[in-house]
Amino acid sequence: MKLATLKDGSRDGRLVVVSRDLAHCCDVGHIAPTLQAALDNWARIAPHLALVAEGVEIGAQPVERFHEHEAMSPLPRAYQWADGSAYVNHVELVRKARGAQMPERFWTDPLIYQGGSDSFLGPRDPIAMADDESFGIDMEGEVAVIVDDVPMGASEAEARAAIRLVMLVNDVSLRGLIPGELAKGFGFFQSKPSSAFSPVAVTPDELGAAWDGGKVSLPLCVDYNGEPFGRAEAGRDMTFDFPRLIAHAARTRPLGAGAIVGSGTVSNKLDGGPGKPVSQGGAGYSCIAEIRMIETIEHGAPKTPFMRFGDTVRIEMKDRDGHSVFGAIEQTVEPYDKGA
Amino acid sequence: MKLATLKDGSRDGRLVVVSRDLAHCCDVGHIAPTLQAALDNWARIAPHLALVAEGVEIGAQPVERFHEHEAMSPLPRAYQWADGSAYVNHVELVRKARGAQMPERFWTDPLIYQGGSDSFLGPRDPIAMADDESFGIDMEGEVAVIVDDVPMGASEAEARAAIRLVMLVNDVSLRGLIPGELAKGFGFFQSKPSSAFSPVAVTPDELGAAWDGGKVSLPLCVDYNGEPFGRAEAGRDMTFDFPRLIAHAARTRPLGAGAIVGSGTVSNKLDGGPGKPVSQGGAGYSCIAEIRMIETIEHGAPKTPFMRFGDTVRIEMKDRDGHSVFGAIEQTVEPYDKGA
Repeated sequence: MKLATLKDGSRDGRLVVVSRDLAHCCDVGHIAPTLQAALDNWARIAPHLALVAEGVEIGAQPVERFHEHEAMSPLPRAYQWADGSAYVNHVELVRKARGAQMPERFWTDPLIYQGGSDSFLGPRDPIAMADDESFGIDMEGEVAVIVDDVPMGASEAEARAAIRLVMLVNDVSLRGLIPGELAKGFGFFQSKPSSAFSPVAVTPDELGAAWDGGKVSLPLCVDYNGEPFGRAEAGRDMTFDFPRLIAHAARTRPLGAGAIVGSGTVSNKLDGGPGKPVSQGGAGYSCIAEIRMIETIEHGAPKTPFMRFGDTVRIEMKDRDGHSVFGAIEQTVEPYDKGA
Repeated sequence: MKLATLKDGSRDGRLVVVSRDLAHCCDVGHIAPTLQAALDNWARIAPHLALVAEGVEIGAQPVERFHEHEAMSPLPRAYQWADGSAYVNHVELVRKARGAQMPERFWTDPLIYQGGSDSFLGPRDPIAMADDESFGIDMEGEVAVIVDDVPMGASEAEARAAIRLVMLVNDVSLRGLIPGELAKGFGFFQSKPSSAFSPVAVTPDELGAAWDGGKVSLPLCVDYNGEPFGRAEAGRDMTFDFPRLIAHAARTRPLGAGAIVGSGTVSNKLDGGPGKPVSQGGAGYSCIAEIRMIETIEHGAPKTPFMRFGDTVRIEMKDRDGHSVFGAIEQTVEPYDKGA
């Protein structure tokens, strides 16, 4: 089953079931007005949505055209956005670029930051920012899951059983603001502005053999200004899978239905070292910071600039037959007009 | 106007208007089913709620008894919980206790951490934890505001105009988990479990002269196991007022209606140095960590233990006539039973 939230002028949009090929959708407001409402009663509501999804596939439901640019993020706002950093390779590179050793326990103790979740961007909304120079605007291509209620102290098995939906995310990051914030010791705040999610969230069964219960084994396609930038395999080098991340997040608190847990920037190693650009036959990168780190390690300084006004990132995932699974996040950086 | 959310078995409870003396309340489900629904359309809905509140005061509305222990947090779950550390005195003491200098810019650049908001505790709910020794369970008595929509880059004047409600919070902290998490560089996650808010949230006008548009000038009463522990004046030593904290939080993102912004632990200086315990005629403390820091500075080691199973904290604020403004948060630490 594939679900999306269409813009209708309200804060939470309207829930639709989307056809597997993303061409059509069917309003399901009579079953649940919003995705959060569906998640609040998933056991009761999901079977009804699944029946509609079946009907859409066999042509037994009234449908309308589905346009990705009319979608909000599946949850336009959420009660919890916990973003991991499960591709530890990425973290090790960050440290290496600044000449620091990564603590050994980073390979065994997951890193998660608490994100803000009251103002997600739509998948085709601009990344509107007041400043494109000192902010150091970057994308981070990631996979994320939405969970049902998870009790405090849940085991990894319980966490696995609570995964309801899978989607993609662009965890927009302001690299220029990160060092100052991290030096203050309280984590990210201004340096992690609104994130955007894929037009469609899918139940794990839609992923078929690409879902093993803990991670998605498909390449994450990141294009930058129309050129292939990243093709990293999301199923490779993910040191902590989703059940592990969820259990970590739930160690001292329950997670409420609709909580989103992210993978962190998808990143592949190459022969134990950093990967090569797509143009050189490598898997490329899911954020600009990573290529800059490699440039720094190799040449002493970064040369790829962060995103400037007018730059566009596209994040998508295709199945082994080449069909888009979640639709595409596609965002252009624009000057923020406070008066607008 | 005073508002509360009563437990009714649902995730978001039911909204009631509470009488000024906290004795009675009136269901307003016909106006807005939940507090979030009211905040989503505050300009339209608040006047209707205010009429009910007037009716409650003059006996022109059907009322029921209001029992604080039947209340959930005013927002049982929220889309944003941004907690500042506005009483910089408290931060300076933390650093001093571990022999570190606080950077000078902490007096001019607000500190805010991103909190989790999907599973707030009710004001009388236990603090249920799996471990009361290594976790180092502590309370943090704070003031918080709920805002309307705040645009990205809002000025302090715009932030001030967006404050809709004021309440108290117990920002439960696990001191034993903080050093390990902060060393990882991503801020708090496991060390900041579910927070609890006061039974009642009030519009700023209810505070009369104690509200200057930016802070609450009343003492925060923190009792620990039935003894006075803190009587710090919330209007004193608050280096950054709420408009400043809100503007800081909104620098690179908008805040959605219903976003909660906290003050951080209320803390008063005494003659430029740390305050004295209430038993010695001082203003006392709003968290255990602070008295432990003073013990460390004075005697080389802390002697007051953190909260153990069975310990109770009560957080309340009374107006100059001795009437409770928000009702009381009163929580006992209990062993968490995962099976329950």
